[in-house]
Amino acid sequence: MKSIVKIIAVLVVFGILIGAAMAQFSKPEDAIKYRQSVMIVMAHHFGLLGAMVKGNQPYDQMAFASNTAVIETLSGLPWEAFLVPGSDRGETTMKSSVLKDPDGLKSLSQQFQIEVGKLSAAAKGNDFDTIKAQFGAVAQSCKNCHGKNRK
Amino acid sequence: MKSIVKIIAVLVVFGILIGAAMAQFSKPEDAIKYRQSVMIVMAHHFGLLGAMVKGNQPYDQMAFASNTAVIETLSGLPWEAFLVPGSDRGETTMKSSVLKDPDGLKSLSQQFQIEVGKLSAAAKGNDFDTIKAQFGAVAQSCKNCHGKNRK
Repeated sequence: MKSIVKIIAVLVVFGILIGAAMAQFSKPEDAIKYRQSVMIVMAHHFGLLGAMVKGNQPYDQMAFASNTAVIETLSGLPWEAFLVPGSDRGETTMKSSVLKDPDGLKSLSQQFQIEVGKLSAAAKGNDFDTIKAQFGAVAQSCKNCHGKNRK
Repeated sequence: MKSIVKIIAVLVVFGILIGAAMAQFSKPEDAIKYRQSVMIVMAHHFGLLGAMVKGNQPYDQMAFASNTAVIETLSGLPWEAFLVPGSDRGETTMKSSVLKDPDGLKSLSQQFQIEVGKLSAAAKGNDFDTIKAQFGAVAQSCKNCHGKNRK
């Protein structure tokens, strides 16, 4: 029950962040650059988590939690930028179909945010098996969206 | 006094985040891409603050605070990536002198983080004059570093 309340709280914060990020991009290229940048930063920190999950780096709770916190902050930001008209052209790997199905993107991005929220909760504890399993769930939510929406 | 304690606490958190971000970049290009991405995201959110400070958008406390929170999270991340050997070549505007003077970069980046911390504190209140003045101080700390370290 407590974790449901937590997840709802997290989604409210994400809602605020999405709202903050919504402000217009003056050009589609700016939206592309912004969302790609958010993705690059998230991917970098997710890679650092992955190194610990896979045993390539020793598990360090503080490092794991702080990298997860960066991902959590960023996880609500890029979605509006994917819906900017015209941002399916140019230097992007986004399929045009995303612009025709904003609810599809919203649903997948919300699922990602929920999984990241759960990872963040797990990262505060020390149950490495739970952390590993939840890391996998986040990775799967990345793949679900990329598989559907990337060229 | 309270605000000094706060600033120290913020710097400790930044220290953790810097540590988290330190993990190796396998190639200098990865470090360049990462630090540029962090800068693009920070610049976007700083631009949203700027629009409110300049009166191009109405001041909205919640939006101001949440955009500042994004900048605060990111403000500790990119600095180690600027010190990766070889990352002064290729697609970058960083001067080579940065690699020879890591303490110079550290000092300027810490000043930036302190100013962002103060903006974050101000953003929790409703004194728009203080917020505007502190926005200016953050902008100045950006300029100080860019002026010295950008080609």
